[in-house]
Amino acid sequence: MDELVGQHPRRGEFEAADAASEAGRGQAAEKDWCIELEGERYAGLHLLVEFWDAKHLDDVEFIEATLIAGARAANATLLETKFHKFSPNGGVTGVALLAESHISIHTWPEHAYAAIDVFMCGACNPHDAVPVLERGFEPGRSEIMEHRRGKIEP
Amino acid sequence: MDELVGQHPRRGEFEAADAASEAGRGQAAEKDWCIELEGERYAGLHLLVEFWDAKHLDDVEFIEATLIAGARAANATLLETKFHKFSPNGGVTGVALLAESHISIHTWPEHAYAAIDVFMCGACNPHDAVPVLERGFEPGRSEIMEHRRGKIEP
Repeated sequence: MDELVGQHPRRGEFEAADAASEAGRGQAAEKDWCIELEGERYAGLHLLVEFWDAKHLDDVEFIEATLIAGARAANATLLETKFHKFSPNGGVTGVALLAESHISIHTWPEHAYAAIDVFMCGACNPHDAVPVLERGFEPGRSEIMEHRRGKIEP
Repeated sequence: MDELVGQHPRRGEFEAADAASEAGRGQAAEKDWCIELEGERYAGLHLLVEFWDAKHLDDVEFIEATLIAGARAANATLLETKFHKFSPNGGVTGVALLAESHISIHTWPEHAYAAIDVFMCGACNPHDAVPVLERGFEPGRSEIMEHRRGKIEP
């Protein structure tokens, strides 16, 4: 377990490295930890991504790089990644832990299928990660479900 | 990244420690990697768990122990856990990586809210983890959404 001090964007304690980030995050803590959608507030946006007829699903280094690129595209803050590869089928399971939540992946190369989750709070938009994931895994067919997590009652 | 050989239940390569597990998992690989529900086959079951008015959301050791207990209740195989704690609000983000997928958690102690995901494939039932999570975090209100991930066309 790692203790992070003053680095959590959603807590309003983030010390941004640049003025643009600071402008977006340096508001009241009550506002920073959530997102606003159609007049309602939520803890975060969670995309359940299904990729079929996808590629590179047994390549751990490629998968890790693609998840990191997806996190960056969404302006998320990477904390660490953890991956496991299974033999003999080459399935990969792993996660990129973010200050804004996580991206996870589980692959079944023998079925060319991957289940990916992109869950982000704060100023990040998980939809910005999707084109990067699609370019990487080249799915022939995909389904994306959006869930709004943690609705905040007024 | 860790290389696991012959320990992936969903690949039919699992060398079970006991006869009961062996009986459940030692079938054809095509059958092992998925679950059957109402005559349809899926890669896994994914529960999106929302806990409100919950407790212990800033206690990393408690959260880790509770997630591990939940994984055990569902007969899942724990690979490793990773947690981060944020200051000053005490929010925790973390994951228990499983051979059967993962349990993740993100907490907002200042709002007594936790977003938990329980995603399991193979012979595990993620619903078996929920009572353990409820006993641990004592939510005053909870919502659980079930998603069937990776539908396999016949």
